[in-house]
Amino acid sequence: MIKVALDALGGDFAPDVVIEGAVNAVNKNANIHVVLCGPEAQVKEGLAKLGYTGNGITVVDAPDPVAMDEHPVMVVKKKQHSGLVTCVALQKKGMVDASVSAGNSGAMMASCLLLLGKSNDKFARPPIGCVIPTADHPVILVDAGANVDERASTLVDFAIAGSAFAETYFGYPQPKVGLLNMGEEEHKGPAVLQEAYQLLKSAPVNFIGNIEGEDLIMGKADVIVSSGFTGNVVLKMLEGFFEMHHKMFGSIDTEAGRKFDAMWDYRMTGGALLLGLNGTGIIAHGRSDALAIEKAVEVAAKYAESGVAAKVNERLAAIKDEAPAEPAAEA
Amino acid sequence: MIKVALDALGGDFAPDVVIEGAVNAVNKNANIHVVLCGPEAQVKEGLAKLGYTGNGITVVDAPDPVAMDEHPVMVVKKKQHSGLVTCVALQKKGMVDASVSAGNSGAMMASCLLLLGKSNDKFARPPIGCVIPTADHPVILVDAGANVDERASTLVDFAIAGSAFAETYFGYPQPKVGLLNMGEEEHKGPAVLQEAYQLLKSAPVNFIGNIEGEDLIMGKADVIVSSGFTGNVVLKMLEGFFEMHHKMFGSIDTEAGRKFDAMWDYRMTGGALLLGLNGTGIIAHGRSDALAIEKAVEVAAKYAESGVAAKVNERLAAIKDEAPAEPAAEA
Repeated sequence: MIKVALDALGGDFAPDVVIEGAVNAVNKNANIHVVLCGPEAQVKEGLAKLGYTGNGITVVDAPDPVAMDEHPVMVVKKKQHSGLVTCVALQKKGMVDASVSAGNSGAMMASCLLLLGKSNDKFARPPIGCVIPTADHPVILVDAGANVDERASTLVDFAIAGSAFAETYFGYPQPKVGLLNMGEEEHKGPAVLQEAYQLLKSAPVNFIGNIEGEDLIMGKADVIVSSGFTGNVVLKMLEGFFEMHHKMFGSIDTEAGRKFDAMWDYRMTGGALLLGLNGTGIIAHGRSDALAIEKAVEVAAKYAESGVAAKVNERLAAIKDEAPAEPAAEA
Repeated sequence: MIKVALDALGGDFAPDVVIEGAVNAVNKNANIHVVLCGPEAQVKEGLAKLGYTGNGITVVDAPDPVAMDEHPVMVVKKKQHSGLVTCVALQKKGMVDASVSAGNSGAMMASCLLLLGKSNDKFARPPIGCVIPTADHPVILVDAGANVDERASTLVDFAIAGSAFAETYFGYPQPKVGLLNMGEEEHKGPAVLQEAYQLLKSAPVNFIGNIEGEDLIMGKADVIVSSGFTGNVVLKMLEGFFEMHHKMFGSIDTEAGRKFDAMWDYRMTGGALLLGLNGTGIIAHGRSDALAIEKAVEVAAKYAESGVAAKVNERLAAIKDEAPAEPAAEA
């Protein structure tokens, strides 16, 4: 049984869609137990309205609301009785295996950082590892938006974390790692990417070189390494494209149409995983509907069950940042 | 009559598709004359094969080929008898109004820089202004890939150039300028974008603030300001979306499908304009087919006719880089 703590008040359409998503997740997955953290009476009323009487959901009273613009660290300090902080605190106590919130993503990140703790000192903020669609197969994007202005060595750590993610979660053997850039040649792009290219050549990943925006869409790499800034632009463009496509064409009832919807609907991805933490913290989309929440709970359980966080941490720990390339000549 | 010089050997499928595109462009547009620059006998043979006997095309002998990996500046110096350099040199002499190549884009940029010259000293390299599709209407992206690691003030110059482009070419009054970023708030994103945000507030453009990847797709801004690096990723993702859509669904024969194809097919865009030059230099797509070349010739003529380059230069010249914000107190 995998236990997933879920912030009942997180997201633009909470708590109704959160409760509905939780019910659907446990009804469809006998191995998942959801701990709904929120105002007890309201959450229980919501469950009753849906006629849920099973034992797949526990409610933990956490009445404080968290606004989308509240200062992340202040939320952790002052809003200990919020659903968001409670669902992370329960994981810290070992009572759940994963924590999910569609609420204030900065506050979720701060809660995970301060309560679960970093597994290492490589990242200023835990990079966001996100499953994204391509024309071919789902791939992992790191970082989808936590960091900015990274050093080249940090991009290498993204590559290592992303590879461990793709191997563990998808079972891709030796996932192909591409550095998102503006040309294939190694001297292309911003200075930090040129430096990262050189470092990636000798990093313990299957580095296939630079990939461009079109290669990303075509699924040329299994792991896309990118600054958090560019990764965020990419992620939101992918969402925008799906949304536009649906507005223009609706659901196309052919094999291709069903394949497109299954992979490109960002709700199916469920949530993004914070990497480099001692635990499993998932950020779901702010505008999640019930389906997105259901999928977020499912992927949270899969992340926890397949041990993605542990594998990422193990790989990152194996890297010495300043390993000498050669024995010193004078030794 | 607008005269467009076209590099007959430029592009992956040259010269056949280039000659065909030129013929189609002049057959459909009585006001366009194309000067095809390439190996004379080969080009004339190509025209004969297509049965073209009109007087809309002149051939200028320029026999030297330019490889895709040749050093840009060396091309300008050593390959003066190439189609690429010749089509820019003809503009310098006032014999044509615009120059188009689908060949080595670095060499095309160097030819334009060295032969036509910069209109000002604001840009290290002429930014690429590109018409891109959205869910709503075509918009201008600056820079689509010429520069990297720009200063904040350079991004402001992109905004000014892009606004002049959108006003002159599309007739958009007071085009909405969006800064491509990873959040709406002004303190979001890389340091250079935070600085650019502050500068854009008082720049002579209709600045609407940060826009995200999804807003870009939805057409929230008329001018997208972005580093050349990010702009290149964006442009190639847009091309990838169209290609993937077509592979999955083909041409969808509905009103929406025809609208999508008309706007999202990157061949329809024709070519991107180099900004901040004393002249009209257009880079067409390396894998252009005959349709893409035809459209590149058409947009080149439109750029020249509507005076985009002149308007961009006028606006850039009006900006003093270090204008004092207030009269000095001690004066």
